[in-house]
Amino acid sequence: MALTVKKFGGSSVATTEKIMAVAQRVLREKGPEDKVVVVVSAMGDTTDDLITLAKDLVGQPYQYTREMDMLLSTGEQVTIALLAMTLNKLGHPAVSLTGSQAGIKTNNAYTKGKILSVEPERVLGELAKGNIVVVAGFQGVNGDGDILTLGRGGSDTSAVALAGALQADSCEIFTDVDGVYSADPRVVTDARRMKEITYTEMLEMARLGAGVMQPRSVEMGKHYGVPIHVRSTFTQDSGTFIREAYTVEEKEFIIRGVTHDTNVAKIAILGLPDHPGVAYKIFSALATANIDVDMIVQSIRNTDKNIIDMVFTVAQPDLPQAKELVEKLGTEMQVFGILVDYNVAKVSVVGAGMLGHPGIAANMFGAMSDAGVNIEVISTSEISISCLIQADKVNEAVNAIHTRFFPRES
Amino acid sequence: MALTVKKFGGSSVATTEKIMAVAQRVLREKGPEDKVVVVVSAMGDTTDDLITLAKDLVGQPYQYTREMDMLLSTGEQVTIALLAMTLNKLGHPAVSLTGSQAGIKTNNAYTKGKILSVEPERVLGELAKGNIVVVAGFQGVNGDGDILTLGRGGSDTSAVALAGALQADSCEIFTDVDGVYSADPRVVTDARRMKEITYTEMLEMARLGAGVMQPRSVEMGKHYGVPIHVRSTFTQDSGTFIREAYTVEEKEFIIRGVTHDTNVAKIAILGLPDHPGVAYKIFSALATANIDVDMIVQSIRNTDKNIIDMVFTVAQPDLPQAKELVEKLGTEMQVFGILVDYNVAKVSVVGAGMLGHPGIAANMFGAMSDAGVNIEVISTSEISISCLIQADKVNEAVNAIHTRFFPRES
Repeated sequence: MALTVKKFGGSSVATTEKIMAVAQRVLREKGPEDKVVVVVSAMGDTTDDLITLAKDLVGQPYQYTREMDMLLSTGEQVTIALLAMTLNKLGHPAVSLTGSQAGIKTNNAYTKGKILSVEPERVLGELAKGNIVVVAGFQGVNGDGDILTLGRGGSDTSAVALAGALQADSCEIFTDVDGVYSADPRVVTDARRMKEITYTEMLEMARLGAGVMQPRSVEMGKHYGVPIHVRSTFTQDSGTFIREAYTVEEKEFIIRGVTHDTNVAKIAILGLPDHPGVAYKIFSALATANIDVDMIVQSIRNTDKNIIDMVFTVAQPDLPQAKELVEKLGTEMQVFGILVDYNVAKVSVVGAGMLGHPGIAANMFGAMSDAGVNIEVISTSEISISCLIQADKVNEAVNAIHTRFFPRES
Repeated sequence: MALTVKKFGGSSVATTEKIMAVAQRVLREKGPEDKVVVVVSAMGDTTDDLITLAKDLVGQPYQYTREMDMLLSTGEQVTIALLAMTLNKLGHPAVSLTGSQAGIKTNNAYTKGKILSVEPERVLGELAKGNIVVVAGFQGVNGDGDILTLGRGGSDTSAVALAGALQADSCEIFTDVDGVYSADPRVVTDARRMKEITYTEMLEMARLGAGVMQPRSVEMGKHYGVPIHVRSTFTQDSGTFIREAYTVEEKEFIIRGVTHDTNVAKIAILGLPDHPGVAYKIFSALATANIDVDMIVQSIRNTDKNIIDMVFTVAQPDLPQAKELVEKLGTEMQVFGILVDYNVAKVSVVGAGMLGHPGIAANMFGAMSDAGVNIEVISTSEISISCLIQADKVNEAVNAIHTRFFPRES
C-alpha cells in the first residue's frame, strides 16, 4: 500500500478527452490498496478566458488582487469536479476538494500566495473512506477564509505540500517533458535524462533557467523530505526522482546539468566613483523597487582616477525600470556612462560534486573558448558556475559545454 | 441609512456590458450612508456550458450530485468577482463572497439544497468597513464544508435569507418583469401591476402558476418578515412589494390575481370499486414515487354497481410514471378503464379577501360560462379557486375571468 500524490498541469487536462485520459491513467496505476490524491490545474485556456472577461470590465484587473483570486480559482474548481465525476463514472469513488477544503493555508499575498501549512484531516478522512481525492492546485485559503492563488508553479507546490503533510510515499509531477535532463533537449540533442537529482541541484538548475520545476515546490519537497517524481503525462516511462541524496549508482557525472537563461539583460555603469557606500546606494535602490539583481561584477579600481566599472544583470522585464533608476543615480554620482544590453544570455553548469573537483571552471571556459564564445561576466556558487555571453551564441555554448562534461557514448 | 439586499439574476448579468450596467445602477441608487449587499447568479449561459462539459465526460452528470454542485457553483463565483472588481473600478470599495464565505448554511441535499441558517458576521463586518458586499446566490455550504447549490429560484432564496439574517430594510429582486401582475401580461393585455401583495397571496399565486417568484423565497420572506420588492432590471419603476399586510390604500380588489398553469395533465380512473382504502392505495403509491398530486375529485358513488370514478391531476413530466403506476393498480382492482389527458390547463383566482365575500366562485364560473369554456374539475382553498379546463381555452378563460374581477377602467 502506498500513498501517492499525482499532479497534472493545465495542458494535461486541457480538454474533456485529456481529463478522461488522466482519469484512466490514475486508475490504471492504482493498486487496490493504494491511496491516491490527484492535484490538477485549470483546463488549458480557462484562465486566459477569465482574464479576458475581467479586462473587458476593468482594463487592468490585476490591481484587484483579491477579486482576481476569487475569479481565477474557479478554473481549478471546474477541473476537480469534472475529474472526480469521471473517476466515479469509471467505477472508483472519488471526491473533489478545493484548496480551502483540502486544508491548504496561505499567507495574505493575493495572486502570489505562499503556502504556510497544510491541515490534512479532511483529505485523510476521504482517503480512509476509500475515495480518490481530487484537489484543486494553485490555490489555498488565508486566515480570513479568503481564497488565494499561489505564485508561478503553484500547482506543483500544492502537490508537494500536500504530499509532505500527508507523509506520502511520493509526489508525481506529470508534465509535458519526461524528466529532468542534463540540458534542454530542444537545444542539446543528446541531453541525458537523469534518473535522480538532489533537491539542491534541482533548485540551482531551476534558479539558473531549467524550466521543468519551479524552485518553490522543490524547496517544499526538501523541507518535507518528499521525493518528487517528474514524469511525462504522455508516456509510461519512469522519469526523474528529485530527492535528498542519490539512491542508485548512476555513471558518475560531477556536473548534473547545463542550463541556460535568455531572460536576462545587462547593465554596465562606467566610471563610478570608488568610495564606500556607492554599491549599497545602487543595489538598495534596486531592491526597494523589487528588482532582483543576479550576477554582479566590479572591475579592479582604476587608481589614477579612483573609479570603477560595475556590471550586473536583471531579468529582462525589469530592465526599463532598472535603467531609469540607475540613470538617475548615475547623474547624481557623475558617472561616465551607462550601457544596457538585452542581447545577452547566461549559461551555467550545476553539480553538487564540483566542490571536490577542481578544474570544472577551466573545463567550462575551455569548451566555450574552443567554440569561439566570448565570456562577459562570470559568477560562481558552491554548486554552480555561470557565464554571461552574447545571446546569439547560447546554443553553441550549451552544446560545447555539454559535450565536454557528458561525452557522447560510443 | 438603509440596509438593502439587491438580487440580479442570470439574464441581468449575462454579459460584461450587463454586469457594468448592474454596477452603475447599484452605485446610482446607493446613498452615501446606505449599506448594500448584492446577490448575483451565474452569467447567462455559464451553467449550460459547464453542464455540457460534464455531459461530454460522464453522460448523465446529475447522478454525481456533489460534484455537480462543485462544478456549477463556479458560475456565480465568476460573476461576484467580476462585479466586485467593477464596483471597485467605478470608485466604490466592494468585496465578493461565496455562499460559504457569506455564512449561508444548507442541509445536505446536493443540487437542491435548502438554506438552514445564515451566519451574517462576515457580511456585517465587510459592510462595517464600507464595502458593498457581492454575494454568490444559489449556493451555500453544509456542515462538512461542502458546497451545495440551492433548488429552483435559489438566488432569490439566497437574497431573502441574507436580508432576513441581516435584518435588512428591504430585499429587491431585479428581474425581467417589473412586478407582480393581476394576470400574466402576455395573456391579459390590461393586467394590472400590483403595488403590494401579501406573502400568503404570492405563495398561492406561485403555487398556481405565477412564475415571477419561487415559493421558497416568499416563504423565507414571510418567515423573516422581510419585505420583498420585485422590480425590473431595465427600468427605474417601483415594482411590487410582497409583505405581510397592505400598507397603502389600493383600490380594493377582492381577487388579487388570475393565474394559469398549462403544465398539468389529468388522469381519470373509471369504475373503481368503492371500498375503504382504495384512495389510500392509489395516492400512497404515487407519493412513494415522489409524484405530487394536485386536484382530486371523486364522483358520487354509483349505488347500483358500488363503483366510483376518480379524477386527479399531476405535473406533465410526471404523467408517464403516474400512468404506469395507476394502470398496474387498476388491473389489480379490476377498474373499467383509465383515461389520461395532456390537453388540460388550470386557471385560478387568488385573493385573501375572498373568505368574507361569497359569490367569487359563482362569478368565476359565470365568466367562463359566458366565454363558452367548459369546466372539468374544480378545487378550492381558503384563498383560491381553481378550475381544470381544456388547454386550448386557457387564454379565453383567463381574460374572461380577469375582466370580470378587474373591470376595465373607462
